[in-house]
Amino acid sequence: MSSNPGGGTRLDPWFGAYARRTHGLRVSETRALFSVASRPEVVSLAGGMPFLDALPMDLIAKVTADLLATEGTVALQYGNGQGHPTLRGQISQVMAEESIQAHPDDVVVTTGSQQALDLVTRVFVDPGDVVLVEAPSYVGALSVFKSYEAWIEHVPMDESGLIPEALAEAVKRLSRAGRRIKFLYTCPTYHNPAGVTLPVERRVEVLDICQRAGILLVEDNPYGLLGFDGRITPAIRSLHAEGVVYLGSFSKTLAPGYRTGWVTAPHAVREKLVLASEASILCPSHASQLSIAAYLENCDWLGQIGVYRQVYRERCDAMLSALAEFLPECSWTKPAGGFYTWVSVPEGVNTKTMLPRATTALVAYVSGTAFYADGQGERQMRLSFCYPTPERIREGVRRLGGVLTKELELVALFGPHGPGPDVTGPAADVTGPAPDVA
Amino acid sequence: MSSNPGGGTRLDPWFGAYARRTHGLRVSETRALFSVASRPEVVSLAGGMPFLDALPMDLIAKVTADLLATEGTVALQYGNGQGHPTLRGQISQVMAEESIQAHPDDVVVTTGSQQALDLVTRVFVDPGDVVLVEAPSYVGALSVFKSYEAWIEHVPMDESGLIPEALAEAVKRLSRAGRRIKFLYTCPTYHNPAGVTLPVERRVEVLDICQRAGILLVEDNPYGLLGFDGRITPAIRSLHAEGVVYLGSFSKTLAPGYRTGWVTAPHAVREKLVLASEASILCPSHASQLSIAAYLENCDWLGQIGVYRQVYRERCDAMLSALAEFLPECSWTKPAGGFYTWVSVPEGVNTKTMLPRATTALVAYVSGTAFYADGQGERQMRLSFCYPTPERIREGVRRLGGVLTKELELVALFGPHGPGPDVTGPAADVTGPAPDVA
Repeated sequence: MSSNPGGGTRLDPWFGAYARRTHGLRVSETRALFSVASRPEVVSLAGGMPFLDALPMDLIAKVTADLLATEGTVALQYGNGQGHPTLRGQISQVMAEESIQAHPDDVVVTTGSQQALDLVTRVFVDPGDVVLVEAPSYVGALSVFKSYEAWIEHVPMDESGLIPEALAEAVKRLSRAGRRIKFLYTCPTYHNPAGVTLPVERRVEVLDICQRAGILLVEDNPYGLLGFDGRITPAIRSLHAEGVVYLGSFSKTLAPGYRTGWVTAPHAVREKLVLASEASILCPSHASQLSIAAYLENCDWLGQIGVYRQVYRERCDAMLSALAEFLPECSWTKPAGGFYTWVSVPEGVNTKTMLPRATTALVAYVSGTAFYADGQGERQMRLSFCYPTPERIREGVRRLGGVLTKELELVALFGPHGPGPDVTGPAADVTGPAPDVA
Repeated sequence: MSSNPGGGTRLDPWFGAYARRTHGLRVSETRALFSVASRPEVVSLAGGMPFLDALPMDLIAKVTADLLATEGTVALQYGNGQGHPTLRGQISQVMAEESIQAHPDDVVVTTGSQQALDLVTRVFVDPGDVVLVEAPSYVGALSVFKSYEAWIEHVPMDESGLIPEALAEAVKRLSRAGRRIKFLYTCPTYHNPAGVTLPVERRVEVLDICQRAGILLVEDNPYGLLGFDGRITPAIRSLHAEGVVYLGSFSKTLAPGYRTGWVTAPHAVREKLVLASEASILCPSHASQLSIAAYLENCDWLGQIGVYRQVYRERCDAMLSALAEFLPECSWTKPAGGFYTWVSVPEGVNTKTMLPRATTALVAYVSGTAFYADGQGERQMRLSFCYPTPERIREGVRRLGGVLTKELELVALFGPHGPGPDVTGPAADVTGPAPDVA
């Protein structure tokens, strides 16, 4: 037998056989951070992991055991590609909290809302098609769009989210250039990573711009119910059923380990999504779906979301106070909900090259460059307040303040372009391969 | 706002916005059968659902509850994209039963082995690339290959599975024509749908042909441990680690509701698969992975597979006797394991047009056409013996015998091309839209 069957390199005999799309795949910055964040001595302000200690775990264990003991042969069997009707009905009720009126038939259950994003992109995007995204945008969405060889176009935001005038300008410019814009991807509520929220007036404007241009609006809303004051901004989907594909998730309001999210779409689009999902995974997990259905049925899920809100409000407060105390040279957004704040550092500091030094100082964050497809974000970073306790958040921000102070000293000594990152020592693995979105 | 934003049809405003690959998506024959098979009065010989009543459900409930009560904050949290190390270690042990030596690092946990198929295709196949498959081949694999716009080329089988000479001929012919063959997809053990098994000598030959031609071999092996006599044929992967991508699943040996399968691949390919999976679903379900890990740790999983083997052997016996009794005009394969037998009907009978009449007579099967990408299979059907009891299997085959007798009378009266299918009445929804693979 040939020792080099693919005609490729010695390191990878199949190198020559990969599809075109595969050559663009890169290890993401956030994946490298997983290993760092898991070290107990590091305060991770990097990940988006919900604080599951707040869940009534004994009750969940009991409800799940009852489900398996009484309906195990259903819960562990194959299901249909669209998702279990009981859960889809409950999802309609969850969305009603955000003023969405959607029939359970319009809901497709997915393996986390990440799969929903994958399916929407698969169904709509040919290589070279344009996807409009906020600047910055969710790193996992950028990965999907890149994997389908989309052209990613960032649209500027401000403290109130996506700027309608900038969107209109981008649409005009790209249309004039003959580009096919497939959809706008937006996270309007407690934005990841920016932490800002699009006001209702802007939602109307943004939707109107998309409608006039014949552009689908993809609304990603995993944090919508996690507003600190308990008020809920109506989803864009509540304004228009036919023009919006809505992505929801149980990952932040319940738990991500079930990998259960959903997409609500206009009828014909929904049918395409189901077919694409069947080809991709046959059907979503019945075990997860029916466990969640039993939880929603037997537990006070809205009360639990209230518990989460309190936890995250307290942690956000801790973070904002610590930022004021330890990073006075920076500016940051003031989230009204969700998991993240977006911090801008002084000119001359580069958050990507600073990251190894931060992890050496036992604090982790995600560099702003992860959230752009075009190399922006070197002066920003995302800080998460969802997982560590308020005390740990304060300690993490204190460490970050120390790192930044030294960074500013270096900038003062060498100027903004020297002496470059120190990638030796224990933090070297954090930088890893090039990020897929920078 | 425009009432026709996508410039498409009135029925689907987004019709003009779909990607090229989306226009090839069709409802599969097997999906339509789900709704029929679920009617209690119908004996379904159609689906591949394992018989979960054979599972120790109280024990599984207890083990799962213990997991959630003691490690719930881990089990319900995000995990890494490759899958949990504990489960990957256990998967290595499961594969050792099939003589495979694979390090846990070479395993990627997926959302059922369907997602593994999707990832392998995504990583390797550009539109127009050739994928070699058996004739017939698994319907879910054909759906994936079509969704990536592969050119599907069937290679003939006989009672001993894929014919090596036919494979060599196909490779030669396609290579001469300048086609890029990306991989051979094969289900060598207790084949779905053919029910046959590739002997070891042929495994060596098939692998050698692929190696000489530089073609990757994708081995799909969900049924490998379900041989009726308890003997286990070594997987092709056990013969060669670098030339084979191996797909495994807990769907048949434990339960499909967890949607947990895996792919074992050469190192560099594995890394691409992880990246593609992260873009697609972020990470596989921790809840499912750790539930299965706890089951494997605390229950006699090999003994349970022995129970399954007994159940399916008894049901296969019931089916083969019933076929001899009620379908003497037909021929069929004699499975040594797995879920299926492949039945050939007399000339003039068309299993696809016969299906509505069969369901009217309260028995369901899958027409052979579902398992071909090129319109073959009209004289074949797949019968499953995994789910109904032996008594129900006998009754189902008896009903099928009655339908076939009438069919043969029609053939005698009108010849093989008339009077065409009767799609009125309650069975009409079974035919549904065109199958995606016919």
